Amino acid sequence: MEKKEWGFKENHDLHAAAAFTIRNVLEAIMGNIDETRTGKPMIHLGHGDPSVYPCFRTSTIVEDALIESIRSAKFNCYPAGVGIDSARRAIADYLSRDLPYKLETDDVFLTVGANHAIEVLLTVLGRPDGNILFPRPNYPIYEARARFTSLEVRHFDLLPEKGWEVDLDGVKALADDKTVAIVLINPGNPCGNVFTYDHMQKIAETAKQLGILVISDEVYAHQVFGDKPFIPMGVFGHIAPVLTLGTLSKRWIVPGWRFGWIAMTDPAGILKQTGIAGCLKSCLTITADPPTVIQGAIPHVIENTSESFFLNINKLLKDAADLFYERLKDIPLLTCPHKPEGSMFAMVKLNLSAFYDVVDDTDFCMKLAKEESMVLFPGDAVCLKNWVRVSIAADQAVLEDAIGRVKAFCSRHAKH
Amino acid sequence: MEKKEWGFKENHDLHAAAAFTIRNVLEAIMGNIDETRTGKPMIHLGHGDPSVYPCFRTSTIVEDALIESIRSAKFNCYPAGVGIDSARRAIADYLSRDLPYKLETDDVFLTVGANHAIEVLLTVLGRPDGNILFPRPNYPIYEARARFTSLEVRHFDLLPEKGWEVDLDGVKALADDKTVAIVLINPGNPCGNVFTYDHMQKIAETAKQLGILVISDEVYAHQVFGDKPFIPMGVFGHIAPVLTLGTLSKRWIVPGWRFGWIAMTDPAGILKQTGIAGCLKSCLTITADPPTVIQGAIPHVIENTSESFFLNINKLLKDAADLFYERLKDIPLLTCPHKPEGSMFAMVKLNLSAFYDVVDDTDFCMKLAKEESMVLFPGDAVCLKNWVRVSIAADQAVLEDAIGRVKAFCSRHAKH
Ligand SMILES: Cc1ncc(COP(=O)(O)O)c(C=O)c1O
Ligand SMILES: Cc1ncc(COP(=O)(O)O)c(C=O)c1O
Repeated sequence: MEKKEWGFKENHDLHAAAAFTIRNVLEAIMGNIDETRTGKPMIHLGHGDPSVYPCFRTSTIVEDALIESIRSAKFNCYPAGVGIDSARRAIADYLSRDLPYKLETDDVFLTVGANHAIEVLLTVLGRPDGNILFPRPNYPIYEARARFTSLEVRHFDLLPEKGWEVDLDGVKALADDKTVAIVLINPGNPCGNVFTYDHMQKIAETAKQLGILVISDEVYAHQVFGDKPFIPMGVFGHIAPVLTLGTLSKRWIVPGWRFGWIAMTDPAGILKQTGIAGCLKSCLTITADPPTVIQGAIPHVIENTSESFFLNINKLLKDAADLFYERLKDIPLLTCPHKPEGSMFAMVKLNLSAFYDVVDDTDFCMKLAKEESMVLFPGDAVCLKNWVRVSIAADQAVLEDAIGRVKAFCSRHAKH
Repeated sequence: MEKKEWGFKENHDLHAAAAFTIRNVLEAIMGNIDETRTGKPMIHLGHGDPSVYPCFRTSTIVEDALIESIRSAKFNCYPAGVGIDSARRAIADYLSRDLPYKLETDDVFLTVGANHAIEVLLTVLGRPDGNILFPRPNYPIYEARARFTSLEVRHFDLLPEKGWEVDLDGVKALADDKTVAIVLINPGNPCGNVFTYDHMQKIAETAKQLGILVISDEVYAHQVFGDKPFIPMGVFGHIAPVLTLGTLSKRWIVPGWRFGWIAMTDPAGILKQTGIAGCLKSCLTITADPPTVIQGAIPHVIENTSESFFLNINKLLKDAADLFYERLKDIPLLTCPHKPEGSMFAMVKLNLSAFYDVVDDTDFCMKLAKEESMVLFPGDAVCLKNWVRVSIAADQAVLEDAIGRVKAFCSRHAKH
């Protein structure tokens, strides 16, 4: 027999999906950075990960919890696909604190961070003729993972002039009898907004009317620092079934621990009756698991992290939002229509006609990286062309420096 | 507008795939166990996880490495999709010790255990008209994950009478120009066999002739305790490109840490040229990541775990294999054609005609669970009907007790 050629067809779907991730977009931008040439150390306001700043270091209680889990030698074994009971129970109790009813262990599924939760949910909801409603702007992994399902993606708008509220008329116009769910992110990424109780109730009622599930991405839960309190969507679970996504990454500032969850907040039991709960379990049986050793730390992390740790983080974010919002007013080429009041981000609009040689948001970010060794995230990659997303979760001095660099960049590139 | 029905179509593919996992099969068997009724504590020889036995506890060096990673506070951040460089480098150096050439950092991709590596590889290799060659018997996750690709699965036999060697004529008869890869597991799960150098060379030459990649699942690397040494398939990487799967789960006895890897052992660079390396990277960009905090511990784990720890584990496995193989000879209804010489398993054949009321392997496992509170894994679920897989990785006293229970069970159910 002749030797056959080494045959392999590249899977271009993988590349196309990967292109639509924070990681790959950041990699392209960071390729332009040369600290030696600019003489400036890199400032990275491109993603929601302030863990590198000492002021944002996680609590020692969180570190101790993991150390205790290791030393116990009880959590070196394989976990169950849905997670170990003690960790599920701890998350159920934690979420129940803010709900009008009590979640059970079985209502919680553990995932390798919320990104994995998004992968699992979209896999479970996928059906050949179905469609799903995503916000515009959106968190990119939704777009990337939706490509691996047969779901058609339809975008409704978040309205900057209304503090990034959902365009509910748009939602109604988009949905049809093949719509499976609506995705909401609250507190908002990339917009830094927080929904009011009234608005959320309207969303739930709309979902009920349309017969669709609500996927509520609450990875920034409790990270609010404006006038509006954080309200979990699960509060409205009696109106429409809610699948809530959560994570340790943001509130506890340990994105590197890759621990998240999906919670069913659904007092009417619709998710169980329609088989969604069973499909979640099956999907988790055949996908990656959060390490048992990390799951073992969860009860301790949840029960013992002090309120003062959270208050301090929110204070840092509030100060950052104040500083950012005030200082941005000095830069006429940029507009932030809504002061950040939650999460770690602000959306900033580029007044493109005022630039003489910046053609769009990607061009802005590429040139800024090159000239100022500074990373921002282009709006195009969150589905909002000619805006940029700024992470405000940084050390105060770094943020000051960053705004100074953006200002210098803008005056160099402004039309005269 | 009328309220629409809550519409959701269950994804039965998910259930079908999940059914084909160790987890779900074990769940069904363990459902029959009632320790109170039998008065016997459960003995679980159903999976490859001895971490619960004190004698198999991981090294304190391994625990210390993770604690150091936590305390450094350097590994709380998001990792790169392919893993952090220091961990990739450590794995590359570790694997290079046994290869005739040196792996680079870029040759190693980090995954959430080897199960996730299997998911990633099958996703990358999937193509509408392709097929892939799996061993029979096989490790079930391959079968489960293949259902999520468009790959057609074809099984070649492992030959018990030849110490579970690959039926190479069968391989040649199965392959065609749409075949993408052959999967090998060495040391073997479920068979407990170890391939010789000569046999592996023949496999590599066959793969070359057929123009297919070799996927070498070496999660039990170095866990050999018979006459044959462990030889990594990468040694033959110059003949055919090899993708090697590895894990911390087995050799370091921390399956709960969910840390694995894919290594490209391919001196001719075919995997890079044909785009497989790029597709692996893209796939890892959009799937789950092993926690950074665990990745941070890897260099320390790899460099510092003492040889005596590994020797002791292999000694425990050798003693278990001796005990098991000898004692099994007393049970005429069961045959173990090949003494375990690697991994943690033995395959045992049921002489069904000698039982009076056991109809098949699943029936055997179900009744054994019920009557003896003991878990074995049915051969059907590893694609070999009417065999059972026994994990020998247990405390010596437990194993003695287990064999006694199996013997009692068999004499109760034997024809007279
Ligand atoms: C809206 C949103 N959802 C999900 C995630 C993923 O979070 P995790 O770190 O838990 O994977 C992020 C992370 O930035 C996010 O911003
Ligand atoms: C042959 C084989 N491959 C892969 C795996 C998965 O290993 P991990 O724990 O790294 O996911 C196992 C686990 O039992 C196995 O036996």
